[in-house]
Amino acid sequence: MKSYFHDIAPIHYRGPGSDDPLAFRHYDKNKIVLGKRMEDQLRFAVCYWHSFCWNGFDPFGTATFERPWFEGGSPMELAQQKAEAAFEFFAKLGAPYYTFHDRDVAPEGATPRESHDNLLRMVDVLGEHQQRTGMKLLWGTANLFSHRRFMSGAASNPDPAIFAMAALQVRDAMDATKTLNGENYVLWGGREGYETLLNTRVGQEFDQLGRFLNMVVEYKHKIGLKGAILIEPKPREPAKHQYDFDTASVYGFLVRYGLEKEVKLNLEANHATLSGHSFEHEIATAGALGILGSVDMNRGDPQLGWDTDQFPNNVPETALALYHIQRAGGLGSGGLNFDAKVRRQSIDPQDLFHGHVGAMDVCAQALLIAEKMIVGGQLEAAVAARYAGWESPDAQDILAGRVPLDRLADQVLASNTDPLPVSGRQEFLENLVNRFCGS
Amino acid sequence: MKSYFHDIAPIHYRGPGSDDPLAFRHYDKNKIVLGKRMEDQLRFAVCYWHSFCWNGFDPFGTATFERPWFEGGSPMELAQQKAEAAFEFFAKLGAPYYTFHDRDVAPEGATPRESHDNLLRMVDVLGEHQQRTGMKLLWGTANLFSHRRFMSGAASNPDPAIFAMAALQVRDAMDATKTLNGENYVLWGGREGYETLLNTRVGQEFDQLGRFLNMVVEYKHKIGLKGAILIEPKPREPAKHQYDFDTASVYGFLVRYGLEKEVKLNLEANHATLSGHSFEHEIATAGALGILGSVDMNRGDPQLGWDTDQFPNNVPETALALYHIQRAGGLGSGGLNFDAKVRRQSIDPQDLFHGHVGAMDVCAQALLIAEKMIVGGQLEAAVAARYAGWESPDAQDILAGRVPLDRLADQVLASNTDPLPVSGRQEFLENLVNRFCGS
Amino acid sequence: MKSYFHDIAPIHYRGPGSDDPLAFRHYDKNKIVLGKRMEDQLRFAVCYWHSFCWNGFDPFGTATFERPWFEGGSPMELAQQKAEAAFEFFAKLGAPYYTFHDRDVAPEGATPRESHDNLLRMVDVLGEHQQRTGMKLLWGTANLFSHRRFMSGAASNPDPAIFAMAALQVRDAMDATKTLNGENYVLWGGREGYETLLNTRVGQEFDQLGRFLNMVVEYKHKIGLKGAILIEPKPREPAKHQYDFDTASVYGFLVRYGLEKEVKLNLEANHATLSGHSFEHEIATAGALGILGSVDMNRGDPQLGWDTDQFPNNVPETALALYHIQRAGGLGSGGLNFDAKVRRQSIDPQDLFHGHVGAMDVCAQALLIAEKMIVGGQLEAAVAARYAGWESPDAQDILAGRVPLDRLADQVLASNTDPLPVSGRQEFLENLVNRFCGS
Amino acid sequence: MKSYFHDIAPIHYRGPGSDDPLAFRHYDKNKIVLGKRMEDQLRFAVCYWHSFCWNGFDPFGTATFERPWFEGGSPMELAQQKAEAAFEFFAKLGAPYYTFHDRDVAPEGATPRESHDNLLRMVDVLGEHQQRTGMKLLWGTANLFSHRRFMSGAASNPDPAIFAMAALQVRDAMDATKTLNGENYVLWGGREGYETLLNTRVGQEFDQLGRFLNMVVEYKHKIGLKGAILIEPKPREPAKHQYDFDTASVYGFLVRYGLEKEVKLNLEANHATLSGHSFEHEIATAGALGILGSVDMNRGDPQLGWDTDQFPNNVPETALALYHIQRAGGLGSGGLNFDAKVRRQSIDPQDLFHGHVGAMDVCAQALLIAEKMIVGGQLEAAVAARYAGWESPDAQDILAGRVPLDRLADQVLASNTDPLPVSGRQEFLENLVNRFCGS
Repeated sequence: MKSYFHDIAPIHYRGPGSDDPLAFRHYDKNKIVLGKRMEDQLRFAVCYWHSFCWNGFDPFGTATFERPWFEGGSPMELAQQKAEAAFEFFAKLGAPYYTFHDRDVAPEGATPRESHDNLLRMVDVLGEHQQRTGMKLLWGTANLFSHRRFMSGAASNPDPAIFAMAALQVRDAMDATKTLNGENYVLWGGREGYETLLNTRVGQEFDQLGRFLNMVVEYKHKIGLKGAILIEPKPREPAKHQYDFDTASVYGFLVRYGLEKEVKLNLEANHATLSGHSFEHEIATAGALGILGSVDMNRGDPQLGWDTDQFPNNVPETALALYHIQRAGGLGSGGLNFDAKVRRQSIDPQDLFHGHVGAMDVCAQALLIAEKMIVGGQLEAAVAARYAGWESPDAQDILAGRVPLDRLADQVLASNTDPLPVSGRQEFLENLVNRFCGS
Repeated sequence: MKSYFHDIAPIHYRGPGSDDPLAFRHYDKNKIVLGKRMEDQLRFAVCYWHSFCWNGFDPFGTATFERPWFEGGSPMELAQQKAEAAFEFFAKLGAPYYTFHDRDVAPEGATPRESHDNLLRMVDVLGEHQQRTGMKLLWGTANLFSHRRFMSGAASNPDPAIFAMAALQVRDAMDATKTLNGENYVLWGGREGYETLLNTRVGQEFDQLGRFLNMVVEYKHKIGLKGAILIEPKPREPAKHQYDFDTASVYGFLVRYGLEKEVKLNLEANHATLSGHSFEHEIATAGALGILGSVDMNRGDPQLGWDTDQFPNNVPETALALYHIQRAGGLGSGGLNFDAKVRRQSIDPQDLFHGHVGAMDVCAQALLIAEKMIVGGQLEAAVAARYAGWESPDAQDILAGRVPLDRLADQVLASNTDPLPVSGRQEFLENLVNRFCGS
Repeated sequence: MKSYFHDIAPIHYRGPGSDDPLAFRHYDKNKIVLGKRMEDQLRFAVCYWHSFCWNGFDPFGTATFERPWFEGGSPMELAQQKAEAAFEFFAKLGAPYYTFHDRDVAPEGATPRESHDNLLRMVDVLGEHQQRTGMKLLWGTANLFSHRRFMSGAASNPDPAIFAMAALQVRDAMDATKTLNGENYVLWGGREGYETLLNTRVGQEFDQLGRFLNMVVEYKHKIGLKGAILIEPKPREPAKHQYDFDTASVYGFLVRYGLEKEVKLNLEANHATLSGHSFEHEIATAGALGILGSVDMNRGDPQLGWDTDQFPNNVPETALALYHIQRAGGLGSGGLNFDAKVRRQSIDPQDLFHGHVGAMDVCAQALLIAEKMIVGGQLEAAVAARYAGWESPDAQDILAGRVPLDRLADQVLASNTDPLPVSGRQEFLENLVNRFCGS
Repeated sequence: MKSYFHDIAPIHYRGPGSDDPLAFRHYDKNKIVLGKRMEDQLRFAVCYWHSFCWNGFDPFGTATFERPWFEGGSPMELAQQKAEAAFEFFAKLGAPYYTFHDRDVAPEGATPRESHDNLLRMVDVLGEHQQRTGMKLLWGTANLFSHRRFMSGAASNPDPAIFAMAALQVRDAMDATKTLNGENYVLWGGREGYETLLNTRVGQEFDQLGRFLNMVVEYKHKIGLKGAILIEPKPREPAKHQYDFDTASVYGFLVRYGLEKEVKLNLEANHATLSGHSFEHEIATAGALGILGSVDMNRGDPQLGWDTDQFPNNVPETALALYHIQRAGGLGSGGLNFDAKVRRQSIDPQDLFHGHVGAMDVCAQALLIAEKMIVGGQLEAAVAARYAGWESPDAQDILAGRVPLDRLADQVLASNTDPLPVSGRQEFLENLVNRFCGS
């Protein structure tokens, strides 16, 4: 097999003192953190699309990356070369999982049948690479947004024939995920939304989406696909508005269509910030609603109004994200997928390694900090003390619905005393977080 | 009774040719539009707080307005003067409704009992003014955000004693609304959210809010308050995050706590834009979800990241908002409340009139345009044509849940044809809208 | 010559009563407005890139437009077909001007020489089309952002060899503009900025840009290119930061490099809003600084953080923009260039017409409103009254620098009186604007 | 003297191992960093307004802080108590500097003369406290934004009488600064901008501001005030638009009015982010333009569109800010002023200490990291290598203006070769930064 990264040696853990830019300083996969091997806590996945499909184009510029697998063969030959390059990269990096869209791994054909066949053949190829390298599939998904037929939506398209095309792709991608022992299946609805309300029936499109997702869940049970069906919220881009705007929106949608026990969320940091939320907000909200599933680990640029999909690089912020994931009970069959790409000026193959190595190390260091926060317990204790009043029997009666509004009002009038507010102690808590982050 | 606006004559309709700045050029209240008197279609309300309570302060500056009712008496005397001024204004302006918070009309007392008594007394005063002037109350509400006791939330407060204080205020404000024949009751949770997740239990606070809202609904039925209980979404400000972020978020919350049939929304234009949505989006979404209740009619500044609460002044935008309200079936017991304030440099009493007269005229003109859009029918016809495919029996089978994913996928494979996309015609539709807006 | 738009008839003025979607209702080119023919006031230009080069791709999707000139010939053959299509469109639409980048009209060759030769040949072709149709060139420009060599900047590139490549393209594009009697020359620096400060020397890049622009100005004088050299500000996208952030930033840059008398601005509405300003702000600021040159007439989407380049469609907003242009003395050799594209779902050729016809009509109607504002004079009179105090001799002394700080301070102390603030009358003025916009 | 913080002991350095929340873990003032004592590198200042004047109000709520010096005496008695409390705080905290507005330390009087006299008296009081405690004044400034007379601007006011009032306040505040040995003087123009262009003459207001600033500079030289005159940019809030939008805007303004050698900038982190820039961007830009003066050290909330003025708490971000300050040659007579406030729920006096102690420690740790970056030199070396091409004689000729555009273009044509782009290595550099931040 040809080597695409022959000048890069496999990445190893060298410890915090190392100044080798292509070694891990914190990611020591067998180290036990919070009762599990670090690898099993973090469940890192590398995505196929950003590193192996994207050529560096942006809305104002053409390709900047010149990868050997981009040119010089038939689409299927290039797909096989791309798979070789990807698995060489995965194996050298040492992340245990990868993720893909159907069209990342197999080219769109001239007809539905040809696309279907292309995917089937490439699933065989991927399966062999998995066997050979030990890589695992964190989740699969279908690309329902790049082809022009989906320009006005896939499941929410005004044309039922396009809904049907989406059904074909998702069925096939779910089959592929099952075949490759994928641990989850993701849906991201980049075109499930609208450009203008002038041509849109919002309620009709909700119903189409609700039906489609129910069909997906039913099929999951039919084929025995394990793990979770995950929706990935994003507020906009490419659509002007996407229905899966954020965690709270998707929760409402799931309940409306009876799916809140069947579907969880794949939360992305950059999508959170685009929707006007912090990443921790989305994590904590999904945790509170019982729908936290998996995470796309990246970062946006706070000055930019689009998805920059950069690698995470701020340790204290990442530590808080991982702390909130732990508080919410962890990710179950989910993991940390790097939905992140090197900048389009980072044109050298080793830049792909720098991006991933740095990100894995940031997450590893952040996990060690989150462990200290949890083991220390001071943060949780401060929160518990703040809400302690709700543990009283009277307060529990209120929460249990045993006290009507007017009775409670009359009690206040009778006692006629005004409760004193208590400091929220935000600065104290922020300093405490920094203490955990420090050396 | 003293006059506070003695140099302003009552505002009358003078027709489009008038150049009197204090006359209506479009708002002709008895004109029939879409089958109702214009007044009954628009159901304008003037809010108490911005025009009669706010003194022009902002985060960087102190009062700029010097109103006679701000100084020179006891709090209750000033409250009575304020009521006189407000009703003189309402009557001269000629809007049929007003809206208030409990603390707008009656001062906070030294104890819960004193606050309660102050409100009772002022309700009598307001009732007399209503009687005298014919003004009606569109909705009442309780201010659960200004007092320091609510700094960390009212119903979502970590302290159940403060939850109880909120219960007292809301009970009393609902009673006041009932006494004054208010047509709806609104809850806006400016402090129902958080400043930092470090001291917050999101799930616990959801449950507190859910319980509180159920108590409110139960009490509404107990006292026979007519009209709707309305939640007003806002994404943030004053809180860093407010749980009632937007329409879709509140819908999920309502369903979670079994309230989606009991509670509707009061949507504000400026809150919509702060949450990353267009106003029409929020209207159309609430319409699709069956929870559109009423509207706070104002505008934000697209360059500013806070609630500027300016009067609406863009006719084409307002026409689209009213068009979407009509498409959603109208507002029922709701109306158009001007949650809007003159700029703090607009320090003259007549500026209060300019703000409201202009806004009423903008809405009236917009309503006439919306009528043309509906009567013309071209916009609706274009949408109907776009979704026509879903009327077919096969498509209806899909929506009805009679076609599993794999069967649909196999049908596509069998036919092996790729559907062609169809133009969304956005520019054509936008031009059509402009044609309705034109002379 | 083949026809690309054979089912579209030339667009004519039919008057406000027309309901022909492909006729002008307001744009009556020979009508005299403010002393000039409407055509000469508005100086509309159609841009080459959005309508004839862009294929509908976006960051998440591939081409949606299938134009005959995109495929089926050598690059130069397709460039000639594209030119035929473009001029057929221009002529049928009836806008007097067009605009282009070098690479829009002639393909990049395999070598610098080949690119140079391609452009020369296509300039001949364009010249013939101009001759034949009477179309004129509002401005030319060079594309220094699409090719991968410019990924880290053109004139601000860390590599002087790429600076030199930019010099070649700009020299050739200026020559082409001169040959085609272009009335201005534009520079937009989409890559003149940075992705990360970690690899950037800001001061060095300023100096490179300052030198480059001086070279451009010197060359303009050498070849006798008439009209203005124009810089087009934009805050970001594609770069994380662009040095030509906004009007005020570019002004500082021009003064730093001695160019404030030589270079003016081409202001775009959507770029203004992306930089946190209203379009009128940018116009008024450029007017105040004496550097208003030309305008890219479009609109953004207030909910989206990127350049949507939509056609203008809000008449009152456009009227204010044109009013501020008139107040600033007009555009001189500039004009209104539609840097606007149909949505990627608007895939039919007639959608290109709908976009432009609607935009021209919006601008025409807006111009008629701006004329009323100017002729009426009330807006200007209100402003003059507000600043009248500065006409007094004492105030003129202050402005002329004849009063030191301490003398003025001591005068205030001596008189010991506090001036009263005066209402800013914003709502009155906004209503006045709406009166001009009304029927 | 009464103690206001009697239960708080002076804050000391205890080392990284300390878990005392009211001790420094990193700020060891006598430690030598980059050749100076840490205290002399950082030059921390505590501001008077947020901690001693603000009562916790926000646009939706009244006071939450109940400080002894807020009530129970005449304005001048309270001003003296406030000064006692402030200096007790300063001394216990151990920051060497403080900063104030005139109206923070002395109350507005009933007449200009009374305000003038109040300030004079309080300057004596402050001078005694300085003497007693060893505290120094980093800078003084005048509050030209809170009083209603300034609602439409101070120096940019349409009324010259208000310009004169501003002159009085600034003259007096400069005198006060001189008397108290203040090391700089700051101007922040919160109202120097506009709410609506409809009532504004932008060019006239520029000229007023330019004149005012020249008067200030002339007066500075007259009285021999040492240190810099500093302008603090902010894009908006309270004004809809502020003329001192950002570094690049202010630079243009300074050059226009001949002041670029006389005036520098006081940059605030939160103002930077509100203007659409990173803090480092503003620092690096000011450095490149030679106008970096001082810094307001705080942070905003990336989800909020207003100035939250939170304490800095992210070490890696702060390290980059300090690194860019060092690269720009440091702050000279400037320093790090904490223009930061505790949250309005942080109502306990010790919260004031938590905010400042945490912030000082974050900056100290960040400084140690910045030292490592500078001493290590790898970041600078990577940048130097990237621009090395510009060191060649040919490239220097270009920069020196010795190569006209057409000659350079012809050279490229003659050689006819296309330069290859080089990786920007952003991920490598970001990882390198993290290595410096790590343990």
